[in-house]
Amino acid sequence: MNTERLHRQIAFILEIDRLKSVLRRTYLVNDPRHENSAEHSWHLAMMALLLAEHANVEVNLLSVLKMLLVHDIVEIDAGDTYCYDAVGSEDKAAREEQAAQRIFGLLPDDQQAELHQLWTEFEARVTPEAKFAAALDRLMPILHNYHTEGRSWIDHRITSAQVRERNRHAEEGSETLWAYVEEIIADAVKQGYLTEAGPK
Amino acid sequence: MNTERLHRQIAFILEIDRLKSVLRRTYLVNDPRHENSAEHSWHLAMMALLLAEHANVEVNLLSVLKMLLVHDIVEIDAGDTYCYDAVGSEDKAAREEQAAQRIFGLLPDDQQAELHQLWTEFEARVTPEAKFAAALDRLMPILHNYHTEGRSWIDHRITSAQVRERNRHAEEGSETLWAYVEEIIADAVKQGYLTEAGPK
Repeated sequence: MNTERLHRQIAFILEIDRLKSVLRRTYLVNDPRHENSAEHSWHLAMMALLLAEHANVEVNLLSVLKMLLVHDIVEIDAGDTYCYDAVGSEDKAAREEQAAQRIFGLLPDDQQAELHQLWTEFEARVTPEAKFAAALDRLMPILHNYHTEGRSWIDHRITSAQVRERNRHAEEGSETLWAYVEEIIADAVKQGYLTEAGPK
Repeated sequence: MNTERLHRQIAFILEIDRLKSVLRRTYLVNDPRHENSAEHSWHLAMMALLLAEHANVEVNLLSVLKMLLVHDIVEIDAGDTYCYDAVGSEDKAAREEQAAQRIFGLLPDDQQAELHQLWTEFEARVTPEAKFAAALDRLMPILHNYHTEGRSWIDHRITSAQVRERNRHAEEGSETLWAYVEEIIADAVKQGYLTEAGPK
């Protein structure tokens, strides 16, 4: 056994325990607390397992799962940047790249390279797998917001135009799921969870 | 689009949000709260991604990931049965089977069958993938306990003999990881996190 290699792997596994303490803006559906990024990543992976048939083109499920499991790990250092936060989004890429260097750098070189590549692929949204994974990452918080009566949207005074603009790229991954999101947005406006326009 | 099918898939995805509220006996490494079963499932999936090379025989990583993502969902109804709880373990199988019927039953028939099969395969520990997945599920809480100075072991007065007996089957999935666990147990005794014998 290569003890040094195993010890680096274990050090990384212990380090990423911290993702369980990174809180997102969304609330759980049946529990009034904020969601954390680790449980969110599990939920997205489950979603990929069940909804892969709705991708625009056939995707490699293993690649989608790997990307979704890894995609938020950089938040351990960089924090969760709220997707409607224009200021926080400005230096998001730089903060996250630095985080990727440190955290993935705990691993043996080959695995550092693999995880860094998976994260970069997810962020770039060029491959069919990344487009589909990103579509799920957009759909999930919309489901959560809708099923908690728009609580987080109302907290942050989000409008339906913002939701459409920020999330439209989900269509590149799945036209079927985007059509479903459009229905949710329309109903959310009707229910008063989202306003059509309004102060940010 | 088959709307009925998509709606069943979404209903299931919303239902399993509840796994984020099922608490385990383990504590997080850097946060004094208990771990929940959803974030635990994510952490195990990451572990599989990184440690698959240590399996006794080559495993299909996609199958291992699917099993680990799904393996705790029955706890939404059946609760987390503490692995050192002999009484709770008696009717565990029956409680979990009932949970599997209800929860996986929310899905379209083909996906209900797939998830039920994955969960059954995991529990049976016959295939190389299930043996390896189960080994990770045993290693993870030992890592957590060891790196929180044995807090949960001390809470429940667990002995090193119990830890060895309950977890030894991990060896069937990975001799390398079991050898590492043996080192941890020996050091945990030395540090006073585990007693060699003692009251249950």
